[in-house]
Amino acid sequence: MGEAEAPRFVGVDVGGTKVAAGIVTANGDVLAWASRAVARGASASTVVEEIRDAVEEARSRARVGWEAVRAVGVGAPGRVDPQAGTWEGSSNLVLDSGAVPLRYQLEAWAGLPTFLENDVKAAALGEFHHGVGHGLGTGTRSLLYVSVGTGLAAGLVMDGELFRGTGEAGEIGHIPVVADGYPCNCGQRGCLETVASGRALARWAREVVEDAQWATSMGRQRLDGAPLNGQDVLEAAARGDRAALDLRRRLARGIALAVVIGVRAYDPDLVVLGGGVAVGGERPLLDEVRAAVGTLAPELRKAEACVHLTPLGHLAGVVGAATVARLGLSRM
Amino acid sequence: MGEAEAPRFVGVDVGGTKVAAGIVTANGDVLAWASRAVARGASASTVVEEIRDAVEEARSRARVGWEAVRAVGVGAPGRVDPQAGTWEGSSNLVLDSGAVPLRYQLEAWAGLPTFLENDVKAAALGEFHHGVGHGLGTGTRSLLYVSVGTGLAAGLVMDGELFRGTGEAGEIGHIPVVADGYPCNCGQRGCLETVASGRALARWAREVVEDAQWATSMGRQRLDGAPLNGQDVLEAAARGDRAALDLRRRLARGIALAVVIGVRAYDPDLVVLGGGVAVGGERPLLDEVRAAVGTLAPELRKAEACVHLTPLGHLAGVVGAATVARLGLSRM
Repeated sequence: MGEAEAPRFVGVDVGGTKVAAGIVTANGDVLAWASRAVARGASASTVVEEIRDAVEEARSRARVGWEAVRAVGVGAPGRVDPQAGTWEGSSNLVLDSGAVPLRYQLEAWAGLPTFLENDVKAAALGEFHHGVGHGLGTGTRSLLYVSVGTGLAAGLVMDGELFRGTGEAGEIGHIPVVADGYPCNCGQRGCLETVASGRALARWAREVVEDAQWATSMGRQRLDGAPLNGQDVLEAAARGDRAALDLRRRLARGIALAVVIGVRAYDPDLVVLGGGVAVGGERPLLDEVRAAVGTLAPELRKAEACVHLTPLGHLAGVVGAATVARLGLSRM
Repeated sequence: MGEAEAPRFVGVDVGGTKVAAGIVTANGDVLAWASRAVARGASASTVVEEIRDAVEEARSRARVGWEAVRAVGVGAPGRVDPQAGTWEGSSNLVLDSGAVPLRYQLEAWAGLPTFLENDVKAAALGEFHHGVGHGLGTGTRSLLYVSVGTGLAAGLVMDGELFRGTGEAGEIGHIPVVADGYPCNCGQRGCLETVASGRALARWAREVVEDAQWATSMGRQRLDGAPLNGQDVLEAAARGDRAALDLRRRLARGIALAVVIGVRAYDPDLVVLGGGVAVGGERPLLDEVRAAVGTLAPELRKAEACVHLTPLGHLAGVVGAATVARLGLSRM
């Protein structure tokens, strides 16, 4: 098959603060991608517009015409109904309406089969087929993808198939782990997400900077007055900022608890960390997570060794969404 | 088919402190059962002897000859390899040897196909087919069985099949939930099992009785000097003992955390509580667990309503083991 006819898939990753779209090959290679910021509380129609813009920019960069694209896949946060093709938004990206018929809206626009999936489940599928799991084969091998971004959630793939439960399996970010802990966006207190996410990191950082008046580089870097975010802290830690290093280790303990919960509940072959915060923390964060797993669950020897960082980086969600498109099409 | 030819199955439930054996119909009805105490640290050969004695007593009580028995099923705690037919014991029932070829030993004795399964997974299967899950049909329905006995573990059945992960999925009792909590038998500290099990209840009761010198009925009931156990506390609570009622509510909060972890991780249709402690707590404990789930995870509305107490009572393990035998035979 010539390059001109090689099948391409559009993968759209709807995140807590942005949408990213990529043109992806059947092997999971991203030819080009583009992203658009989406504000918290954005309307559903704004989200759809930004998706279209990002897809067109990615397509233009990749110099891929629509005739080469076989299907569109979308990973969206929170409640997604893959059968109905609807999306209800999440506590991190509150929509202004009820369930959005996202599949229908994008199919009408692209004129192509479109498949919808929860963003973390989509990334888990991409990781299984094209990331750490690549080459595992089928058999009984399983992979747990733990997404550490604005929030935290997990997706399990067993024998190539997503584990859904009745639809919301893997929402481990809302397991209460700290009595009288920080309030969570979900309405509860002390959820795992409040100690293992970008939002947790940002909250701790603001406490450190504001309460202790430390003249840290973390505090100085935001002279524009914008609040510190998780990425700021990870960058400060990478520069060697002591307070930021403490916070990264604190984050690692939270992520380690997520890993232990995942291993005890699902007993997978592999645990893969993805999401903006895990990716931003790079190898040092991974090493701290592994060490924290060893401290937290010394009897669970295999847990420490089975934790990996996604090799797909920030594009894990895009590759995952494209994988949803490819697999969805193959089952039509 | 006449009663004489009706197929029977032997179900053996190996627990932390005893073995129970029953003669069970294909519909999951227990015709008769018997049990034997097994001390912690018993040798493997002692466990096998007690199993044989219990089976023979149950068979005699049921007036069922070996010719009517089609297969033997065993549910055993901790690491079980159903394929190899071996059992490695658990942290609650420490064996004096390595992996025990339990299937081979019982097959050689009974002259019948014998099937081995982890005890909680076996009970989950029995619950799906003959307990709360009876009549669910197949489809996509799923059931999570949470066993609260000497320790705590969970077993998930999806579409009639056990969810195993790579073998030890469901060992949620060893998720660390209390920082610097009580030491657990597994070697870690603050495991879920240390706040949601019979052992937890007994430990709290001894603290109450010893530390506060309370003249509670809990304290008085053990004039023989034997330590209080979980069942003593539940009985005292049922009598209205105030200290025991407090402890039962404390236990309910621990079990509620197990339920929330299970619902977030697996998102099942139903959660069924079984095991000696859950069964001993009866309806009042169930009500307290439901209330505690509502307090712990107010946003998880469906969780509270989906929790049930096993209708199979103390025989859930026996029915489960017999179900393992029946299903195992049908796949031979």
